[in-house]
Amino acid sequence: MRIALDAMGGDNAPEVNLHGALEAAQAWNCEVVLVGHKERLEADLKHFNTKHLPVTIEDTPDVVEMSEAPAEACRAKPRSSIMVAAQLHAEGKVDAMVSAGNSGATMTAALMHLKRLEGVSRPAIATVLPTLEGLCVVLDMGANVDCKPKHLYQFAVMGSIYAQEVLGLPNPRVGLLSIGEEEGKGNELTVATHELLKASPLNYIGNVEGRDIPFGRVEVTTCDGFVGNVVLKFGEGMAEAVMQLMKDEIKKHPMAILSALFLKGVFKDIKKKFDYAEYGGAPLLGVNGVAVISHGKSNAKAIKNAIGVATEAVRHDINGKIRKILEESTPEPVKPAPHV
Amino acid sequence: MRIALDAMGGDNAPEVNLHGALEAAQAWNCEVVLVGHKERLEADLKHFNTKHLPVTIEDTPDVVEMSEAPAEACRAKPRSSIMVAAQLHAEGKVDAMVSAGNSGATMTAALMHLKRLEGVSRPAIATVLPTLEGLCVVLDMGANVDCKPKHLYQFAVMGSIYAQEVLGLPNPRVGLLSIGEEEGKGNELTVATHELLKASPLNYIGNVEGRDIPFGRVEVTTCDGFVGNVVLKFGEGMAEAVMQLMKDEIKKHPMAILSALFLKGVFKDIKKKFDYAEYGGAPLLGVNGVAVISHGKSNAKAIKNAIGVATEAVRHDINGKIRKILEESTPEPVKPAPHV
Repeated sequence: MRIALDAMGGDNAPEVNLHGALEAAQAWNCEVVLVGHKERLEADLKHFNTKHLPVTIEDTPDVVEMSEAPAEACRAKPRSSIMVAAQLHAEGKVDAMVSAGNSGATMTAALMHLKRLEGVSRPAIATVLPTLEGLCVVLDMGANVDCKPKHLYQFAVMGSIYAQEVLGLPNPRVGLLSIGEEEGKGNELTVATHELLKASPLNYIGNVEGRDIPFGRVEVTTCDGFVGNVVLKFGEGMAEAVMQLMKDEIKKHPMAILSALFLKGVFKDIKKKFDYAEYGGAPLLGVNGVAVISHGKSNAKAIKNAIGVATEAVRHDINGKIRKILEESTPEPVKPAPHV
Repeated sequence: MRIALDAMGGDNAPEVNLHGALEAAQAWNCEVVLVGHKERLEADLKHFNTKHLPVTIEDTPDVVEMSEAPAEACRAKPRSSIMVAAQLHAEGKVDAMVSAGNSGATMTAALMHLKRLEGVSRPAIATVLPTLEGLCVVLDMGANVDCKPKHLYQFAVMGSIYAQEVLGLPNPRVGLLSIGEEEGKGNELTVATHELLKASPLNYIGNVEGRDIPFGRVEVTTCDGFVGNVVLKFGEGMAEAVMQLMKDEIKKHPMAILSALFLKGVFKDIKKKFDYAEYGGAPLLGVNGVAVISHGKSNAKAIKNAIGVATEAVRHDINGKIRKILEESTPEPVKPAPHV
């Protein structure tokens, strides 16, 4: 299996990308195609022992910067590392693509080159969140800000397959993010989506509230990309603020300063649990291929795990399974996806 | 000034309600009308020293239970404590109403009896959240699940006046909850709302992201009630989960167990910062009166502070100020509010 890695994408590229790629090649038994500036990459690779490792370079001059407007940058730089990674995938030269670069550009490049998966109206970004009970796939995290019930239904299908096949969660419970658990509670969008999900073959348990996610009541949560993005950022902010507050308060209590030394292990374990690097990036589900969007701050471990996620998605043929469920159960006929 | 308190509403009613009412009468220099079952209340009041305290009872037999459907219950029980509290307010016999009972019923009763404030299309529930920098008023928290730009604009106006007059925050910064700070980012609703807010006399700083709230970048955040409710519950859940996780981890580390004893003060201070009882309940802004919705789990302190919030709202004539700004700056002519 071959995975294209945008070697130039991310705040710490290309160093951590190379490091992560080499670890991934060993760990996940795959070939990694490093897409980026050949001279630079070859020079950096000299610092690593790459003998016998299936890592190759696809030379391309341009890079989409983190601050660039995604659509414009992708059009203006067809030979940028992220666009070439997507192109290699579309041409069948690799089986998946991974980027820690400009996430909007990663999405745009994947959509432009791979197009949508047959039967899927809107690809969605799926984020894996740690919960007190394990993991929860939440989607969409921001690809689609205005959604229809059909879209949320398809997100649920895609998230469910992903949870089952890539995260190894059998029969994942699916929830519809809403206000109030009772049937009929919510806005126009969720009330209509509820009807579609009830009739679906998914393990749908009904509406869930925001607090049900961290407490692990479901393994999959579907919502529109506006809600998903706002919620995720608020939750991250709250968790960070609580930790910050705790550190500030500890400084005020003389006895607590001492005891905080003993708590280092606790803080470290908690940090690890909430460490995005463990979960390896957010797949863009619903494109005709496998595209994984990694955090811009990715370290080598995050890159390695993102490549791992990509290999699992390919090995388990999640797209074939998504297509199959959508074909069998889609509530209304879905037209073939037009070009994006 | 007279405040009607739904003496029967809340998980710990009427005991904590009476306790809170008596403390409020002393602290906020107001008269409290306890609305509820007279015999029961008189018997309970015997446990307190009520001499010289301006507390009276308005006898009424019925109670809306926490689990009842709000609209149906309000119609079926016009003589329930929450409905009578609202009626007393509408008749001018009190200046404000407070309830820790069924929050949907509190909203329904307030809307039925008080009607909307002139110029306001949709009343909104405002919640005061603690932040690392102070406080932030977030609205709407669930009264309106499907909103138009005009509504979000009016929420911002009402929240701004509330922050200024009741929380005492001069020139509060107002943010529009969205995805991405850049102008033009967001969904159809927020993109259109942004234009209205830019042209407003408010101290509008633009889009804010979820994480900006706990970090205190703004003192007022406007969003639709679906987003507000989901976000608040997710944030509460995240904060609780982090604390829970911390306690679980501490138990695993032998040295940490010891040090946790020294951290009790820290946990207590943090708990106090996030204690809803300090902030006294969420006002329903935009009704033609003052209605405060308290947490069902309210203790005496929460009831006392909710009554305090009500007295401040009356003293500062927040409705007069809201009406004035809306009259002067509303982007499109607002029809007089029809009956609800």
